[in-house]
Amino acid sequence: ERPEIAVIPGDGIGQEVVPAAVEVLEAVGDYRFTEAEAGDATLDETGEALPAETYDLAATADATLFGAAGESAADVILPLREAVGSFVNIRPATAYPGVDALRPETDLVFLRENTEGVYAGHEDRLTDDVSTLTRVVTETASRRLGEFACEYVRERPEHDGFTVAHKANVMRETDGLFRDTVLGEAERASVDADTVLMDAFATRVCLDPEQFDVIVCPNLAGDVLSDLAAGLVGGLGLLPSANVGAERGLFEPVHGTAPDIAGEGVANPAATMLSAAMLVESLGDDDAGARIRTAVEGVLSDGPRTPDLGGEATTREVTDAVLARL
Amino acid sequence: ERPEIAVIPGDGIGQEVVPAAVEVLEAVGDYRFTEAEAGDATLDETGEALPAETYDLAATADATLFGAAGESAADVILPLREAVGSFVNIRPATAYPGVDALRPETDLVFLRENTEGVYAGHEDRLTDDVSTLTRVVTETASRRLGEFACEYVRERPEHDGFTVAHKANVMRETDGLFRDTVLGEAERASVDADTVLMDAFATRVCLDPEQFDVIVCPNLAGDVLSDLAAGLVGGLGLLPSANVGAERGLFEPVHGTAPDIAGEGVANPAATMLSAAMLVESLGDDDAGARIRTAVEGVLSDGPRTPDLGGEATTREVTDAVLARL
Ligand SMILES: CC(C)[C@H](C(=O)O)[C@@H](O)C(=O)O
Ligand SMILES: CC(C)[C@H](C(=O)O)[C@@H](O)C(=O)O
Repeated sequence: ERPEIAVIPGDGIGQEVVPAAVEVLEAVGDYRFTEAEAGDATLDETGEALPAETYDLAATADATLFGAAGESAADVILPLREAVGSFVNIRPATAYPGVDALRPETDLVFLRENTEGVYAGHEDRLTDDVSTLTRVVTETASRRLGEFACEYVRERPEHDGFTVAHKANVMRETDGLFRDTVLGEAERASVDADTVLMDAFATRVCLDPEQFDVIVCPNLAGDVLSDLAAGLVGGLGLLPSANVGAERGLFEPVHGTAPDIAGEGVANPAATMLSAAMLVESLGDDDAGARIRTAVEGVLSDGPRTPDLGGEATTREVTDAVLARL
Repeated sequence: ERPEIAVIPGDGIGQEVVPAAVEVLEAVGDYRFTEAEAGDATLDETGEALPAETYDLAATADATLFGAAGESAADVILPLREAVGSFVNIRPATAYPGVDALRPETDLVFLRENTEGVYAGHEDRLTDDVSTLTRVVTETASRRLGEFACEYVRERPEHDGFTVAHKANVMRETDGLFRDTVLGEAERASVDADTVLMDAFATRVCLDPEQFDVIVCPNLAGDVLSDLAAGLVGGLGLLPSANVGAERGLFEPVHGTAPDIAGEGVANPAATMLSAAMLVESLGDDDAGARIRTAVEGVLSDGPRTPDLGGEATTREVTDAVLARL
């Protein structure tokens, strides 16, 4: 049977870049697409940013392609990550030839823990004055991420190990457990691993990104440090991501809804197409993934380019150029 | 009576840059210096990274100049910040003419909450599997920081407002309280203020640092984002910081012990001298602070320069050059 792909464009430029990526998916494989709603517009219409039908669809489809959500982003994306049972968020941050980058030599992959940390979200207002948030770190989630990181590195000869980013000098018990558990998996699997304090990472990655390769991090550290890397590769329009679960995944560009350009037909579809490449790979079609990536990289390098990259092309023109290369 | 300055060189290059900054202090004012020990070497000798005498000295001296500590840094610097009753850590991140910077137009000041957040440090190992950390955010600390930020901006015509960096879309109660309280103080004081998500800040500050000016943040966000800014101004040797309390302060370079060059006499004393400038200002001598800053900036721009900035000068030569300009 043909794999079912849930398609959730969401708000803003999500409505433009997701259809573009669907055209690319149609060109490389035989999929069933089921569209569903989420985001600010859905909240306005239905009273819910993430209707149960959308959650259920993501929880059962073979894979989900998501665009972006506006103000309601946290209410959409965090439950969707849970719906697909995702335990790791893969965020490659690569500078592409032809694209202006602050650090063109940047070539990093973040493996971000995707279930806990501050995102476990137990908050209390103890008194008028005092609020608390309980950050949760488990050995189970840390081990699972560590196992995944080892597999990830061993399957890809271009990586020879990983770095664990943490703040265990302050969060001794929680980030200590995270760091030690991930390092323990590396040792068991004979994968090279070292560690870096997350604050030191922030300085060092700016000064010399080539000293890093695969970075394994707790949830919030992964959020902030991968966005930092997005700044080094020069733009928000370029980075894809995969929320990987045991059975299925959710694939989304790292960028947001870009309200300033939404509706103008000039959004850069590259990040969503690259997310679609990760999607087809998760369905076992590595060949289609490689084809998409080569086509998108070719267009990034030779044009046409959307205005965020200094060009004048529309989303339509860029999509046609990618399709022509497939 | 002459103000008493506690001097705590600590480990590694702290032993080189702090004496250099003391020479600068001696050249601009009449102070009593009392030296005390802390750090890894002290831990080895005495069994304690921060002896009670050192804590007590910092708690009573008019100001403290601190260098750096090695592995024991958290056990030294966090209690010392508490000893001086510091509630805000001021971290200017400015690119200096003549110094190679990834973003030479960077000119930021971070006002970092200095008492709570994850640094409040309540951790538990609930079961073999589960560890927790209780992050604490109070209205009291947020208001105090907000008041300080308003005063800071109003006293300095070069700043017209501040930006609150936060992650209240996930940490709704705690960072929500922080953000709303700080914004409330800005409104009361008629100071312009806006907000940014800390992850978005990480991307945007790389792409265009000039869109930001003064950034007010929770403790850990301030730690990571100011280290990111250090990467943009090109190096670890340059950034000073002030831990400000109601009665006294603790002044320290943002850099660490630099074990690779410690003992060679080539450490860059600029960050510690710029911290000393903030120190004399805290004692009310704005004129001496300005003199130190002008002298250090002059040497950064015209040389001599230490190897971290591409030069061949020693700490001694740089110090003499700064003294000659005073
Ligand atoms: C919208 C927000 C909840 C989300 C996160 O913090 O994970 C976003 O920043 C991201 O990185 O996908
Ligand atoms: C050493 C460490 C505890 C400290 C911190 O996290 O505050 C350091 O990174 C800093 O920024 O001064």
